[in-house]
Amino acid sequence: MVRKLQVAVSGLGRMGARHALHFLERTPRAELVAAFDPSPEAQAWGKQHLEPYGTKLYTDYDEMLKHPGLEAVVVAGITTEHAAQTVQAIEADKHVLCEKPLSTKVEICEGVLEAAQRKPHLKVLCGFSRRFDASYRDAFAKTINGEIGRPTIMRSQTCDKFRDDDYFVKYAKFSGGIFVDANVHDIDLALWFFGQDSIVKSVTAVGVTARYPDLKQYGDVDNGVAIVEFWGGRVAYFFSSRMMMAGQQDTTEVIGTHGKITINANPAFNLVEMHELGGVRREVDQTYYDRFEQAFVTESNEFTECILDDKELPFKLSGAIQAVKIGCAMVESLQTGKKLDFDETGAQIKEEKARL
Amino acid sequence: MVRKLQVAVSGLGRMGARHALHFLERTPRAELVAAFDPSPEAQAWGKQHLEPYGTKLYTDYDEMLKHPGLEAVVVAGITTEHAAQTVQAIEADKHVLCEKPLSTKVEICEGVLEAAQRKPHLKVLCGFSRRFDASYRDAFAKTINGEIGRPTIMRSQTCDKFRDDDYFVKYAKFSGGIFVDANVHDIDLALWFFGQDSIVKSVTAVGVTARYPDLKQYGDVDNGVAIVEFWGGRVAYFFSSRMMMAGQQDTTEVIGTHGKITINANPAFNLVEMHELGGVRREVDQTYYDRFEQAFVTESNEFTECILDDKELPFKLSGAIQAVKIGCAMVESLQTGKKLDFDETGAQIKEEKARL
Amino acid sequence: MVRKLQVAVSGLGRMGARHALHFLERTPRAELVAAFDPSPEAQAWGKQHLEPYGTKLYTDYDEMLKHPGLEAVVVAGITTEHAAQTVQAIEADKHVLCEKPLSTKVEICEGVLEAAQRKPHLKVLCGFSRRFDASYRDAFAKTINGEIGRPTIMRSQTCDKFRDDDYFVKYAKFSGGIFVDANVHDIDLALWFFGQDSIVKSVTAVGVTARYPDLKQYGDVDNGVAIVEFWGGRVAYFFSSRMMMAGQQDTTEVIGTHGKITINANPAFNLVEMHELGGVRREVDQTYYDRFEQAFVTESNEFTECILDDKELPFKLSGAIQAVKIGCAMVESLQTGKKLDFDETGAQIKEEKARL
Amino acid sequence: MVRKLQVAVSGLGRMGARHALHFLERTPRAELVAAFDPSPEAQAWGKQHLEPYGTKLYTDYDEMLKHPGLEAVVVAGITTEHAAQTVQAIEADKHVLCEKPLSTKVEICEGVLEAAQRKPHLKVLCGFSRRFDASYRDAFAKTINGEIGRPTIMRSQTCDKFRDDDYFVKYAKFSGGIFVDANVHDIDLALWFFGQDSIVKSVTAVGVTARYPDLKQYGDVDNGVAIVEFWGGRVAYFFSSRMMMAGQQDTTEVIGTHGKITINANPAFNLVEMHELGGVRREVDQTYYDRFEQAFVTESNEFTECILDDKELPFKLSGAIQAVKIGCAMVESLQTGKKLDFDETGAQIKEEKARL
Repeated sequence: MVRKLQVAVSGLGRMGARHALHFLERTPRAELVAAFDPSPEAQAWGKQHLEPYGTKLYTDYDEMLKHPGLEAVVVAGITTEHAAQTVQAIEADKHVLCEKPLSTKVEICEGVLEAAQRKPHLKVLCGFSRRFDASYRDAFAKTINGEIGRPTIMRSQTCDKFRDDDYFVKYAKFSGGIFVDANVHDIDLALWFFGQDSIVKSVTAVGVTARYPDLKQYGDVDNGVAIVEFWGGRVAYFFSSRMMMAGQQDTTEVIGTHGKITINANPAFNLVEMHELGGVRREVDQTYYDRFEQAFVTESNEFTECILDDKELPFKLSGAIQAVKIGCAMVESLQTGKKLDFDETGAQIKEEKARL
Repeated sequence: MVRKLQVAVSGLGRMGARHALHFLERTPRAELVAAFDPSPEAQAWGKQHLEPYGTKLYTDYDEMLKHPGLEAVVVAGITTEHAAQTVQAIEADKHVLCEKPLSTKVEICEGVLEAAQRKPHLKVLCGFSRRFDASYRDAFAKTINGEIGRPTIMRSQTCDKFRDDDYFVKYAKFSGGIFVDANVHDIDLALWFFGQDSIVKSVTAVGVTARYPDLKQYGDVDNGVAIVEFWGGRVAYFFSSRMMMAGQQDTTEVIGTHGKITINANPAFNLVEMHELGGVRREVDQTYYDRFEQAFVTESNEFTECILDDKELPFKLSGAIQAVKIGCAMVESLQTGKKLDFDETGAQIKEEKARL
Repeated sequence: MVRKLQVAVSGLGRMGARHALHFLERTPRAELVAAFDPSPEAQAWGKQHLEPYGTKLYTDYDEMLKHPGLEAVVVAGITTEHAAQTVQAIEADKHVLCEKPLSTKVEICEGVLEAAQRKPHLKVLCGFSRRFDASYRDAFAKTINGEIGRPTIMRSQTCDKFRDDDYFVKYAKFSGGIFVDANVHDIDLALWFFGQDSIVKSVTAVGVTARYPDLKQYGDVDNGVAIVEFWGGRVAYFFSSRMMMAGQQDTTEVIGTHGKITINANPAFNLVEMHELGGVRREVDQTYYDRFEQAFVTESNEFTECILDDKELPFKLSGAIQAVKIGCAMVESLQTGKKLDFDETGAQIKEEKARL
Repeated sequence: MVRKLQVAVSGLGRMGARHALHFLERTPRAELVAAFDPSPEAQAWGKQHLEPYGTKLYTDYDEMLKHPGLEAVVVAGITTEHAAQTVQAIEADKHVLCEKPLSTKVEICEGVLEAAQRKPHLKVLCGFSRRFDASYRDAFAKTINGEIGRPTIMRSQTCDKFRDDDYFVKYAKFSGGIFVDANVHDIDLALWFFGQDSIVKSVTAVGVTARYPDLKQYGDVDNGVAIVEFWGGRVAYFFSSRMMMAGQQDTTEVIGTHGKITINANPAFNLVEMHELGGVRREVDQTYYDRFEQAFVTESNEFTECILDDKELPFKLSGAIQAVKIGCAMVESLQTGKKLDFDETGAQIKEEKARL
């Protein structure tokens, strides 16, 4: 019989529960042996959906880490615990797949990176789901293959469907703001397509609160626009929004010197179109998960495969930190109203210097 | 100063008025010198829109034909007068652009053809507007250019927007039925793309009355489906409908041995798309004229040019008659419930013969 | 621990191997305990992909049926064995999921139906994959919900990508012909959307051999067009082809009295679009499996669920036979060159009668 | 007989020749009585295409202004003469339609505005063609109608097809740079949809030279990205490029608090789609004129109508100047590398002030 990776999931909230099921049901080479979440609701859910299939439930993270034979942990609880749990798992000698972001603070991210670097035999992955999406991968393969020439300009957006409640406001407390929470995906795409070693030249971000004025108390906005210049003649520009009416719309275009690739420029929920009074209409994905479900499943499977077969992960942990860094610069630009400039080493040019 | 073609329009109903304006305003090399329509409404309209620009109005067709210097006539009144007026104009030595169909009866069409053949110096054109449409022309050019290999299968439909009145029922009295009225355009496209000399092998048509049961009294239907086989390994199949909700939808696809071309597979009224609750929606052309306005203008200009420069017309009158013939065979198939077979000369195979 | 359905797969050819993997890896409530295929290649494949995960391989179908605890069999080998294996499995008291078609012969299909009816406690399902496709299901739900009024006309096509080899010709020997092999899916859709009890009024089919002239020896064609009239004012018309250049294109539109639904009118392989010299281009699914992979997985899961939870299957076995019956009538129409008429009980009206 | 507006065109280069023909052939209420262009090629062209239809050709602008009965002048020669010729025509008491931009310099634009304000009875229009485009007008009507709530974010781009010659480099000498030349249309759209009285809060622009390095000598780029914040919670962001491979792509989206409108998000040259090896492909407009031809014709007709019927022009000359002003601020931001800030009166906040 084949060996299956022994995996645990930490956090059984919305995204954590999905991760748990992905490993339980849709990752043939893995076995979900343990799950941790202290909340009574999560325990109840686990008793119904996980326990009968052989997953042991824990209310204590440390205990879970000691689960016999455990090899890997998926950190998928609340954002503020991502970094600490990841470090703890690394120290317990477990491979880790951590939901993005590691942290909304750059220094904390760097702490995780250092912990990982001390255990080079472990696979530590930050879950940038778009990296596992078939369409983005196809676009990247075509780009690498030279089909659009040199990638020069990227436009990318992460736009959520409007919600008629206070979710986005409450969430703003610890989300790091729309640029770190939403556009971090787009930033990561820029680093992927432009090269992981791209050096930022300048960052400018602006935004408005059009539907959720209460975001202002957190220095956050519900619509953000940003430009990131890179040294070497490349520019990425981003949009994020919390007020789409049709549904989630995450769209990217990569403009090369010899062509352009778009990903999800025409979002569609499925293959149905309605011809009705008023015209032709198609529905659109409603949530991030509608759009990226299959990417998450691929993520689970590849994470498993990289460990079992000792392959290299598809991208480095340090890239995830670079993305958060740029996201935080956007937040600073938004909040100070200033364009931030960086020299060719990536070091920020201070005002005094910049303005003389 | 340049010479301008002296044109008259007969019939100032909806389509006639449009033809008049096309010649008056959008055909630089023509001059609309006369217009005929005995109805008081038409005269009133003409007094406002044509007379001030130099067009003389007539209430008598014969008189109009005698208008000094008149060179060409556009026959655009009611269908039942098309043939007689066309023949009369030909006999008065005028070039003629006759709205489709010449007649819904094959023999009458043939009478017009004979009249035209007696005056080979005259240009006599039957207005199959799609022949002047830029998209169809582009598709035809690509086809001729070999881009889809040998055209083998054609699917084509002419579908009107549903009307919440009795227009389609009243119109059925003299329209010749949905296959002759609507699909005649699609048949003409088959003859264009497959070759004007294509010989019909069989015709089968069926239909239903789903929204306008009163059509039955005229042996007509509001949704029709038909197959026309041609000798030489080609098949065209057609759909027509009077109950589209989104708008007019006239779509064609030509399937060749090495590719496929579609024309208007994704109808759109303009370049606007709405992202709204329920999804992404675009509006659709509402009427035949919404879709083909520019084709009608091209028709006016090319008809004018062919006369002034003595060029060949873009297609032959005999083709128009062939299209009506096939349309009438569809009607016969619909009404008898039989598949009609034809031999390789195009002669109908009678039952007795066909069934031995 | 939960109980898992004990499943075996018969046939490890292309489609069989996929079914095996779907049950092994993507059907959480099932366990693939056995697989049968006598061919050495299949055994080799099974040793690599199934045996290590606990699936026992058989080279004898009878033996496999005796596998301890076996509850259900997936019959997915060559078409000509479908019926016999299904009957045998039923007689061995196993639930069966049989790939379509049960048989290309109506009488044989009926034999299977009778066998199944003798064991009403067994679930016997014929795998019409589109019934499990999310887009078709959404379209059906909208239709049932009244969003397009009364479904009146259906257009549906099953079109394969051209293959530059003799696959389609070899396959024609036992495929039953393009109408039974390909359009049977479309016929099944018509029965689904129009009602399983719809009675056929007439069948007309024509076709050509444009790319594979050798199909003629089997009375088959590479492009087929057919019309099926139903009593009660409904018409379905179908197209099938073996020469698409862009890829597989299976498209359906359902035209109701108050709207239209299309499914896959704009095929796309993924969400990428290329803007390049020549225009904007997107790729298209290449194969049936590209398009319906997820539907097959849903099929496995629902078949499993219906057995474990003793639920009704989503559609009846008798419907599958009705679809084959109509497909065979198309073949007869194609080969005789005649339109076939049926009375309101569905009985064929013989020539003598029809033509008097 | 009706009175026709007596019009002259100045400049018979590419765009001027088109304007001449629009007035000659496609503006029923106007008469092209005169045309000025001193170049021998233009004179030759005029002799062939204009003179035979009654247009008098001039090689001296002053002389042309004295053409008997002349009422209106279309200024369509080289950009650097726009302002002077417009002022001269105004002083000669002629209505003026001036191609955009009036000038690439703000002060010169303001000079024209003052000249126009001294003759309030004259109609002076700057030709922002998108204002006359049917799709933009439809989008604006829907916006005004509240269909997307309050317009909050605009994304708009003007992207030219790549040219394999030095046209764009030569053109850069007097074009004012890509932001003033190309994005000025997008800026104008922002002012239209956000309100003509919108006050700029900040301007940031960056750019690269990816295909035309020689643009650098003019301080210009071949790809530009810019953000314009407006007071009152609105943001517009822009892209311009000279290196599109598929064709011209001018796309706008207006994101409101309750919906989104896109204009030309899916560019298409016509209604044809090719299904071929590699997928489904459609062609795209190649030039600005491919996309906006009909808008230019509408412009000619409405300009004529506003004069003849003494109606208000669809938008004010001052708006055109506001657009140039913002475009020039983008150029300044690009060239200085700084974000420009403005106070609530629209006055630029100087560095010293901004940074304290």
